Amino acid sequence: MNTLGRIFRFTSFGESHGPAIGGVIDGMPAGVGLDIDAIQAELDRRRPGAAPGSTGRMETDQITILSGIFEKKTTGTPIAFTIANKDARPADYDAMRDMIRPGHADATYLLKYGIRDHRGGGRASARATAASVAAGAVARQFLALYGIDVRAQVVQVGEATDEAGMEAEIVRAINEGDTVGGAVACTVSNCPAGLGEPLFGKLQAMLAASMMSINAVKGFEYGDGFSSASMRGTQHFDLPTGIDTVLHTATNHAGGILGGISTGADITMRVAFKPIASMMRDISTIDTNGSPTILYMRGRHDVCAAFRGCPVVEAMACLTIADALLLARASKPVCDIS
Amino acid sequence: MNTLGRIFRFTSFGESHGPAIGGVIDGMPAGVGLDIDAIQAELDRRRPGAAPGSTGRMETDQITILSGIFEKKTTGTPIAFTIANKDARPADYDAMRDMIRPGHADATYLLKYGIRDHRGGGRASARATAASVAAGAVARQFLALYGIDVRAQVVQVGEATDEAGMEAEIVRAINEGDTVGGAVACTVSNCPAGLGEPLFGKLQAMLAASMMSINAVKGFEYGDGFSSASMRGTQHFDLPTGIDTVLHTATNHAGGILGGISTGADITMRVAFKPIASMMRDISTIDTNGSPTILYMRGRHDVCAAFRGCPVVEAMACLTIADALLLARASKPVCDIS
Amino acid sequence: MNTLGRIFRFTSFGESHGPAIGGVIDGMPAGVGLDIDAIQAELDRRRPGAAPGSTGRMETDQITILSGIFEKKTTGTPIAFTIANKDARPADYDAMRDMIRPGHADATYLLKYGIRDHRGGGRASARATAASVAAGAVARQFLALYGIDVRAQVVQVGEATDEAGMEAEIVRAINEGDTVGGAVACTVSNCPAGLGEPLFGKLQAMLAASMMSINAVKGFEYGDGFSSASMRGTQHFDLPTGIDTVLHTATNHAGGILGGISTGADITMRVAFKPIASMMRDISTIDTNGSPTILYMRGRHDVCAAFRGCPVVEAMACLTIADALLLARASKPVCDIS
Amino acid sequence: MNTLGRIFRFTSFGESHGPAIGGVIDGMPAGVGLDIDAIQAELDRRRPGAAPGSTGRMETDQITILSGIFEKKTTGTPIAFTIANKDARPADYDAMRDMIRPGHADATYLLKYGIRDHRGGGRASARATAASVAAGAVARQFLALYGIDVRAQVVQVGEATDEAGMEAEIVRAINEGDTVGGAVACTVSNCPAGLGEPLFGKLQAMLAASMMSINAVKGFEYGDGFSSASMRGTQHFDLPTGIDTVLHTATNHAGGILGGISTGADITMRVAFKPIASMMRDISTIDTNGSPTILYMRGRHDVCAAFRGCPVVEAMACLTIADALLLARASKPVCDIS
Repeated sequence: MNTLGRIFRFTSFGESHGPAIGGVIDGMPAGVGLDIDAIQAELDRRRPGAAPGSTGRMETDQITILSGIFEKKTTGTPIAFTIANKDARPADYDAMRDMIRPGHADATYLLKYGIRDHRGGGRASARATAASVAAGAVARQFLALYGIDVRAQVVQVGEATDEAGMEAEIVRAINEGDTVGGAVACTVSNCPAGLGEPLFGKLQAMLAASMMSINAVKGFEYGDGFSSASMRGTQHFDLPTGIDTVLHTATNHAGGILGGISTGADITMRVAFKPIASMMRDISTIDTNGSPTILYMRGRHDVCAAFRGCPVVEAMACLTIADALLLARASKPVCDIS
Repeated sequence: MNTLGRIFRFTSFGESHGPAIGGVIDGMPAGVGLDIDAIQAELDRRRPGAAPGSTGRMETDQITILSGIFEKKTTGTPIAFTIANKDARPADYDAMRDMIRPGHADATYLLKYGIRDHRGGGRASARATAASVAAGAVARQFLALYGIDVRAQVVQVGEATDEAGMEAEIVRAINEGDTVGGAVACTVSNCPAGLGEPLFGKLQAMLAASMMSINAVKGFEYGDGFSSASMRGTQHFDLPTGIDTVLHTATNHAGGILGGISTGADITMRVAFKPIASMMRDISTIDTNGSPTILYMRGRHDVCAAFRGCPVVEAMACLTIADALLLARASKPVCDIS
Repeated sequence: MNTLGRIFRFTSFGESHGPAIGGVIDGMPAGVGLDIDAIQAELDRRRPGAAPGSTGRMETDQITILSGIFEKKTTGTPIAFTIANKDARPADYDAMRDMIRPGHADATYLLKYGIRDHRGGGRASARATAASVAAGAVARQFLALYGIDVRAQVVQVGEATDEAGMEAEIVRAINEGDTVGGAVACTVSNCPAGLGEPLFGKLQAMLAASMMSINAVKGFEYGDGFSSASMRGTQHFDLPTGIDTVLHTATNHAGGILGGISTGADITMRVAFKPIASMMRDISTIDTNGSPTILYMRGRHDVCAAFRGCPVVEAMACLTIADALLLARASKPVCDIS
Repeated sequence: MNTLGRIFRFTSFGESHGPAIGGVIDGMPAGVGLDIDAIQAELDRRRPGAAPGSTGRMETDQITILSGIFEKKTTGTPIAFTIANKDARPADYDAMRDMIRPGHADATYLLKYGIRDHRGGGRASARATAASVAAGAVARQFLALYGIDVRAQVVQVGEATDEAGMEAEIVRAINEGDTVGGAVACTVSNCPAGLGEPLFGKLQAMLAASMMSINAVKGFEYGDGFSSASMRGTQHFDLPTGIDTVLHTATNHAGGILGGISTGADITMRVAFKPIASMMRDISTIDTNGSPTILYMRGRHDVCAAFRGCPVVEAMACLTIADALLLARASKPVCDIS
């Protein structure tokens, strides 16, 4: 489905080359002053051209808010917004109407729905992440009331994990008409203890689902993640040093979550992005009849998804933490709501 | 929350040392012959003692079905079941009433709820996975009608990835009073194309949430997963070779899912288990007042979670695929339901 | 589905003549002292024999709690419970295996599921309301922390609306081997203002759905209800007299809800019960092959559903108000959850 | 919340005097040819001026579709649409900024959210029903594939139940600066058997929740409804005459639903509308400080909600039946989805 969350809920809509993408945020608490410029700033971070090796498509990604705000404050009613597709060039995709692009959702949409909007990936395009970023920016302003912050950065491109190496990987991939994978690390700081619901609403499960919904993401881990598999219990051990409104520990192998519930320490996680499937070269594939054909990608695409993925990762984390925070209000016997 | 799924929905309940754990399965289609022995067999696979280095707790894990079955067939109404806690020894945990066990949910339950059932981890105990295994075994019998199968195996213990090495890691950890992490690979075979819902109900997002809800799991990946981050687009490329009711490809880097929707190829995924936090040695920690203390773990625990984790991973995959399968029925304009 | 609510969620299971009915309550706040005797007392109110003209089936309706309670307090984890079916006499229903009882769910379960548990109505039996009553009694203890109370009473039996008349209607129906309809009025007193969520979570919509899920209920109204249809605006008018934490009005035609949100005044509502379809007489009907046949009802049944319906109506109201109360915690920007 | 449905889901947004209202339909099956003119025709039925005694506000209610349609067919992705507020005159409401209009949501929004958009009722305005009508018109086109039709009509205005009498009631109310209540009957014809989910997803519970979410609706009943309360079992009896894909009965007191599941007979229901609270006369009330004041309603309002309520009632029924139809696909063991 196209709705994320249980209390703080974001419904997303729109295709890459339709008139607009957008969304509806339901469950945002009332009375929160909303800074539209700050939302636009997040959209600008994700915008084509804002990251190395990104697509040539020019979109201003200007947000229009249709509801839910009154005199610059949230009213508790749904916040609907649109982002126009201005540089849509559906004709660029005419040649792809009957193509099945490898590594893309063309075949699966066709198999599932019996019909697909072939223009630029339609609903499956990463363009839909712009709406997530806008919604995440709203959630972020709610989280700021609690002092919570969320930041992500690229920590790997291809084999490289340092800045110069990562840039070299990008240049090399561009020169070879290829693309390259990457990884993003994300930290939620100043997160209160007590977020996350056992058994199936564990905070890491909510975060994993959010992150795995991002285009091109192939893996999620938190704390020591996959390296935990090769560790001993004595190595993975976090010495508790105190408890007040949060649990204090000497180290944070756990990644800020125990038993599905936040400890109050930084929540640390990583996501892996596959190399983008659209490459600037001739690609062997089949058409929708199953006949072999050659595809020359004429669309405009990124070389590495991780860079423009950072604001998206942050947005998904903000949306998820906002939802977990509102859910957590239900745990205590009496809560002053006045 | 303690319910998983949207159509095929499993609600779990129970504490480690209460009278029983169990669950309610809602949304199981009617008219499916249900083999109770097959459910019991899955429970036996997860049962203490069934895997190397597992806890000394002796539970028969006998399932009792309370509803939803009539003359050995499902009726479409909720299937409730219980599994008694027979070898519960709450007194073993008296000394831990005021302890905060490192790496466990003790502190977070206390911070979230202001109260906790300290006996054996209470609700946070991996004992709750027995109920998941039972529910997964019901889902598996539904999936079998479509020819779908789900299998998991341990592929890593500590640094080892071969069978002898993994056994050696276990022995070494036991001898040192330590525990060790591991990884489990899981494959869904014969899965129809078209399962998974964009944007936030992507099949990998549903699977990730299910897997991350398992105790001790720290990471999830599908297809080439985290290794995609260091790959080039040309390396990650799966050549399409044909399309009929599924998409055929020469390779399966994608892991059987594109754009959040199953292709019909095997769905491949891996999960990482951290080393179990309960070790057979003295551990420095604090009590609930924050004062330093020493904990000697007297409970009965596994050495490596991955082994008994296999049937749990399979169960979670079965539950998720069953839900995705029922959701997929809603995609087409007309569907013969008679 | 068999789950009610979004935050305070009750999942129900069980058939009339299976081993047990029961349920799982998820989302009950932690740390609430739970009085099991008070739950049992509510069950006793609904129990066969507790109301005039009720079924001869003898059930003690003894509740067994399996989880979620520790040292007499809720822990925030699921509260599972069972109520054994002790006086089940499935053999009483052998003759009805191939019968379609008029006014019952026999035909519709068969058409929907292709299979049915014919014994005493199976899942469609009003026996399932015992589980709702138990769950409602838990919700009631949470509501009591806020001073909220919920009370229902029979206000109509057949044409009669006074006590003597209602009793006469019952006696007459019994003597004639017939059954009779009735109506129940329910009031939620001391309900805080602000419960209910626009647009589709209006408090009256939540209450209506809860009430319409009770067996034999054919209508729901709140405030002036259906008589509003024949009123003028000037007659339906409630003069506002003050506003503090609630809205004060001179009258309460509105029934305590405006725009889907509670005002703080008493919430008043009524539900209509149809005459029970099982009558103590020969009834013409068909069998599952469509052939005409005669049905002599041998089961044990009530004469008027409204009496034993009162505790059920209260339970459904308690469950709904508890859910609305927890949902309302999400409306404000910052809420002290410590 | 502002989302209706579980599979066929409609999310609504917008305020009376903001830039636009609209919605997102998620879960509409793919490949359905969509006639936009037919959607516009439903909006025109609800439009101000289309019914006797309706508001003077002039809105063209032109729908703009932003996503989910490709070459005039649904694609299975979210269908987002907007309806501009062209004749919004927020200044008309300046005098009401600090007023609490009796019978409206002014006080309750203020108490719940601490803030309100006072312009024309904001989110609580019946203007939001235009979005519901548009969404219902989409659902209707899906239902038409199954031959299902939904029709509503006004059956009562004030005390009158015939056409001339109803018109006289309207004229009288207008002349006296008053408003008047009414009732609407709605029938779902050609509905397949098997829709509706026990226990808490009964079809009548889904329908009741939908109808009670309409502004000014105070009651819902189906089949014989509240008159069942005064009936005998022998009077309420529907003689079964045959069973094939539906249950045939000689009469339809049941209203097409038994045990929460559709029988295949017409589903009949009625809803009661209160007299509209906005009257063309001086009204005593209080301001937001609780001080008495006089309100002269300058806004533009209907005299009787039932007329323009008819397309809204139909829309809510269409949305609900579409959702129940898709849910029902999950009941059978194997369903051909190709």
